[in-house]
Amino acid sequence: MINKRGFASDNNAGVHPEIMKAIERANCGHVVAYGNDIYTERAVEKFREKFGDDIDVYFVFIGTAANVLSIDAVTKPYNSVITAYTAHLHEDECGAPERFTGCKVLTLSTGDGKLRISDVEKEMYAIGFEHHSQPRVISITQSTEVGTVYQIEEIRELSKFAHINNMLLHLDGARLSNAAVSLNRPFREFTRDAGVDIVSFGGTKNGMMYGEAVIFFDRKHSEDFKYLRKQGMQLASKMRYISAQFERYLTDDLCLELAMHSNKMAKILEKEIRNIPGIEITQSVESNMVFAIIPKEITDALQREYFFYVRNEMKNEVRWMCAWDTTEDDIMGFVKVLKNLMNKRNT
Amino acid sequence: MINKRGFASDNNAGVHPEIMKAIERANCGHVVAYGNDIYTERAVEKFREKFGDDIDVYFVFIGTAANVLSIDAVTKPYNSVITAYTAHLHEDECGAPERFTGCKVLTLSTGDGKLRISDVEKEMYAIGFEHHSQPRVISITQSTEVGTVYQIEEIRELSKFAHINNMLLHLDGARLSNAAVSLNRPFREFTRDAGVDIVSFGGTKNGMMYGEAVIFFDRKHSEDFKYLRKQGMQLASKMRYISAQFERYLTDDLCLELAMHSNKMAKILEKEIRNIPGIEITQSVESNMVFAIIPKEITDALQREYFFYVRNEMKNEVRWMCAWDTTEDDIMGFVKVLKNLMNKRNT
Amino acid sequence: MINKRGFASDNNAGVHPEIMKAIERANCGHVVAYGNDIYTERAVEKFREKFGDDIDVYFVFIGTAANVLSIDAVTKPYNSVITAYTAHLHEDECGAPERFTGCKVLTLSTGDGKLRISDVEKEMYAIGFEHHSQPRVISITQSTEVGTVYQIEEIRELSKFAHINNMLLHLDGARLSNAAVSLNRPFREFTRDAGVDIVSFGGTKNGMMYGEAVIFFDRKHSEDFKYLRKQGMQLASKMRYISAQFERYLTDDLCLELAMHSNKMAKILEKEIRNIPGIEITQSVESNMVFAIIPKEITDALQREYFFYVRNEMKNEVRWMCAWDTTEDDIMGFVKVLKNLMNKRNT
Amino acid sequence: MINKRGFASDNNAGVHPEIMKAIERANCGHVVAYGNDIYTERAVEKFREKFGDDIDVYFVFIGTAANVLSIDAVTKPYNSVITAYTAHLHEDECGAPERFTGCKVLTLSTGDGKLRISDVEKEMYAIGFEHHSQPRVISITQSTEVGTVYQIEEIRELSKFAHINNMLLHLDGARLSNAAVSLNRPFREFTRDAGVDIVSFGGTKNGMMYGEAVIFFDRKHSEDFKYLRKQGMQLASKMRYISAQFERYLTDDLCLELAMHSNKMAKILEKEIRNIPGIEITQSVESNMVFAIIPKEITDALQREYFFYVRNEMKNEVRWMCAWDTTEDDIMGFVKVLKNLMNKRNT
Repeated sequence: MINKRGFASDNNAGVHPEIMKAIERANCGHVVAYGNDIYTERAVEKFREKFGDDIDVYFVFIGTAANVLSIDAVTKPYNSVITAYTAHLHEDECGAPERFTGCKVLTLSTGDGKLRISDVEKEMYAIGFEHHSQPRVISITQSTEVGTVYQIEEIRELSKFAHINNMLLHLDGARLSNAAVSLNRPFREFTRDAGVDIVSFGGTKNGMMYGEAVIFFDRKHSEDFKYLRKQGMQLASKMRYISAQFERYLTDDLCLELAMHSNKMAKILEKEIRNIPGIEITQSVESNMVFAIIPKEITDALQREYFFYVRNEMKNEVRWMCAWDTTEDDIMGFVKVLKNLMNKRNT
Repeated sequence: MINKRGFASDNNAGVHPEIMKAIERANCGHVVAYGNDIYTERAVEKFREKFGDDIDVYFVFIGTAANVLSIDAVTKPYNSVITAYTAHLHEDECGAPERFTGCKVLTLSTGDGKLRISDVEKEMYAIGFEHHSQPRVISITQSTEVGTVYQIEEIRELSKFAHINNMLLHLDGARLSNAAVSLNRPFREFTRDAGVDIVSFGGTKNGMMYGEAVIFFDRKHSEDFKYLRKQGMQLASKMRYISAQFERYLTDDLCLELAMHSNKMAKILEKEIRNIPGIEITQSVESNMVFAIIPKEITDALQREYFFYVRNEMKNEVRWMCAWDTTEDDIMGFVKVLKNLMNKRNT
Repeated sequence: MINKRGFASDNNAGVHPEIMKAIERANCGHVVAYGNDIYTERAVEKFREKFGDDIDVYFVFIGTAANVLSIDAVTKPYNSVITAYTAHLHEDECGAPERFTGCKVLTLSTGDGKLRISDVEKEMYAIGFEHHSQPRVISITQSTEVGTVYQIEEIRELSKFAHINNMLLHLDGARLSNAAVSLNRPFREFTRDAGVDIVSFGGTKNGMMYGEAVIFFDRKHSEDFKYLRKQGMQLASKMRYISAQFERYLTDDLCLELAMHSNKMAKILEKEIRNIPGIEITQSVESNMVFAIIPKEITDALQREYFFYVRNEMKNEVRWMCAWDTTEDDIMGFVKVLKNLMNKRNT
Repeated sequence: MINKRGFASDNNAGVHPEIMKAIERANCGHVVAYGNDIYTERAVEKFREKFGDDIDVYFVFIGTAANVLSIDAVTKPYNSVITAYTAHLHEDECGAPERFTGCKVLTLSTGDGKLRISDVEKEMYAIGFEHHSQPRVISITQSTEVGTVYQIEEIRELSKFAHINNMLLHLDGARLSNAAVSLNRPFREFTRDAGVDIVSFGGTKNGMMYGEAVIFFDRKHSEDFKYLRKQGMQLASKMRYISAQFERYLTDDLCLELAMHSNKMAKILEKEIRNIPGIEITQSVESNMVFAIIPKEITDALQREYFFYVRNEMKNEVRWMCAWDTTEDDIMGFVKVLKNLMNKRNT
């Protein structure tokens, strides 16, 4: 069976062959369940190499859980979490943050998916006033849900602001590798060293089968995380299969290699699209996504050839996402169909 | 690397080669994420063949989640769930049922892990009285956490009792295949046809990598389950890899073949142990586990050779579990070490 | 001891003498606890006279609880509640709605505290999409937290919109009597008859000691409310003392008499303020509150004489609230101090 | 209207005249809402006199809330609370502890309502094991729900055990005054000085209208309690009316005077009952309750004259409770009816 590649989501892509091989290698004999095994030890070691020896890192199944449990670890239910309106945490987790942590999620509208202090400040009132949820976490996504990337200085400013106000900075890094490639800086430089306190580190969207990591840069924030992970229904019994993936993912910079590819594909796509009159690119292309407004009447026909999602029905803004396995041929094929549809429309 | 097999847990075993091959076959091109794919369709079809065309089935990551979400689907937070003290739901889920559903978990002590109506009746009071949590679900485990198996008639009685009292019967089938082999009956006969309302259907403990299923026999109980699964952080993005496992697991009765093997290994182990004076087998061996009281002083030495868990420190009762990959040689090697230790002790 | 009246809050006022007498009359012998008593029966009857024979009404301690439990009665945790940014539900309940119900609270900015369909529509997307919290309740406040009042037609439009979209309309009536006086219409006309589904009916802010009511116009929404109230820690043991208050409050239109007074005081205050140059009234005065921007430098001195709250530090917008016991002398005294402070400032 | 006194519950009694007068005295002018008032200050001072200057005390509406919030203050959702099966916390709070705190409630069966270390020890396993809820609070009731009273030494042993095991001891003192009278010791001696960490201090069952207090003996446990109280929907706006009650309740030992009376009435009732053949008293009468097994056939007729509750339908065990306003005449009248019914039955 052949499943045709589209531009709907990096979640629609499969597992990279090197990751698959790592899984197979781990499939040998008995090891203690729930993470007390050599594969997990080695994967954790890989994270330490990237982020520092004194981190605490825990594996969970999905990004929603990584975000929700990150917040749960450092809040009480009367706290609030400040995030962008576009954040996965708010838009795409079906209220899991509210239900599991009890916290209020405060959202700020942003054009480009990036939080700014001038926005966050609007929610900084009634501190110490028991009638009002108390802000405790600022959560940003890197790269953002609209494909933009925070500059290191922007992150540093947010973390400073957070710490001055007795808050923490959480970073949803479901596509952290794409950001690393975009910034061309090591992970650590734009997370830990920029003042981020907790990272949801993604693997699934960039070539893994399943598995995300929660990284704590200060162990006092993770003191009871093992209980929270279990109670949050995220403790894998056969943990070794997540760990083996992460070990390989972080070896020889495979994670960066794959992200570099998908970012590059997005750039090629962007370039081609910019040559098509009547299509407006709406966000700066800084990672593996292109957002564009296209004519409503061609959408269905285009989706039939290469599947993708409409993000905003009103404006007919669509999202085209490249994955680790997107090829230049895919893009050229897609662009050809798109051009044809646009031409037909103009005649 | 070779990881030595022990008798600690069927979770310590790896993935069966046929399951691994199915995962690899699914690793091809793009498919829509979150379950709207051909692999999931085919896996669901396999469940329909076993349990009926009108079931609803959902995949989740782990057994704890299958249990918690099963209960969440049919309760309100002022309800209670009645279960055995030994139930995974109570003992091994770190309070996830209480936290996620808000319900009270009422536990009854049982010698053999099996609930009886005479016990359940003790909690059937204050019905309609708003000061008291209202019983809504009886949850049983099949095969139980101590390796025993409910007879079909026992399940039928419990379901009748539940339904007469406006309650539902949930069955935690983390080891359902072992029970099917033990009873030598089709799954359906001792679940749906015996009046069970919801089943947590296990795969991980019997040769899968990850993935459990929640099966609803009446769709009115699953009306909003898709939201609960997402909010419960159990919606896999690359769902196809769970589905492909389940499809293979239910094809050519692989699930039964593997359970038949582990049950048989437990029987051989039991037979060997019964020949060793000074060791008392404490539970009827009806699935893939042997519970026994052994002398405290030999425990450490035995564990060093073949890892296993002490279940009750007071009595030094231990649990020996066989897996799909346990061999007769493993058992004979283990028994030899055990006999030696017992002999040394007697001299 | 004499406690000087200020303009901080109608919560700072005491209990009306008639309410106090009703409490004393109820203080006689034994009655069954938790609401199964004659006082509660009579109070409920009073509500039936106002809202219809087929309503269901439950008493709770405070307005926060009336709101939270109203929502809890008709939602599942994956639902969302749409409300104005200024709503008590969002601003002043310390996240109780999120923690207790698990729901997401979506807020819309409004200048005058009133929700409009054009705003609500912005949140009506991703319906049926399991990644996204599903809208289930629109919650409005009448009179609003900024002293404005919805016209009947405005409520009717919102309820129609809600019902078409499979949602319900909840009305936070902490100051419902003030709205009734403002509209000069019976309660029923702008609640039940305008399509509202559930009302939080306030008493405390308008002369009662404690006690609020939750009124359901369709009993299918209150089927299990008695359990939710108990689990929500709102079931009063000596219920008769809440009931006796409500009975009196609804007799001879005491509730309207008191609201008419506080509304009238606000009107007088408004008139006086409009004569003072340099003070800007920021909201239409339609109930018992006046919002105004005053010079920062006079705030402290004014608060020392007559206590009140600054609502918006940035703009130095303040809130002056009249209560059932505010007198014209209070207002004239206050205005005099204010004028003096303004004059001193100008010289 | 005259409401006849029965023996159903001390919650069925009204408000003591001195408490009512205190409420009236507080009904004067404006004071700041939510507890920042002179009445609350004075009431807190009264608690300090009894329990020490460095306590933290918070008022809530009901006993269920006092218990639930006490536990919430010192637990995380993965913790468990160990209590007697008869505890109000387990039996009569409709699962509010589980829903609000997320914790597991572990219950131990006890004949006399009192927890013993030998029982508690059964739940002290799997410490540090993330699959299992971690014990954090032992909760006892004083006097217990079956009318018995812990001796000071018994409390001291439990608190020692708790502290050694990194747990805290919570005491549900809904009827603490009855215990104080029974032990004939000051409150402090059998709470704080006996190692109790948190007390739910009751008022409603002993002559107050509404209001309970949560007392923390170590302020590190109450650091964020003001938020928890608000989020728990227990922050009274017109707090002064609770405070005024407590101030009077603790003045001139009114609380003890009332409890002494109800305890004495129970003793008289016990003495009379012991003279009636065919009635078995089932619990030691140490506070204001008598538990007895009576013939089923006389129950209805007796309840019609003097209302009371059957506690155990199987055994026809009934509970007769005396209140602050029970008179000797009430008892003699009741005993007369009871004797007549017993005589008729024997003939």
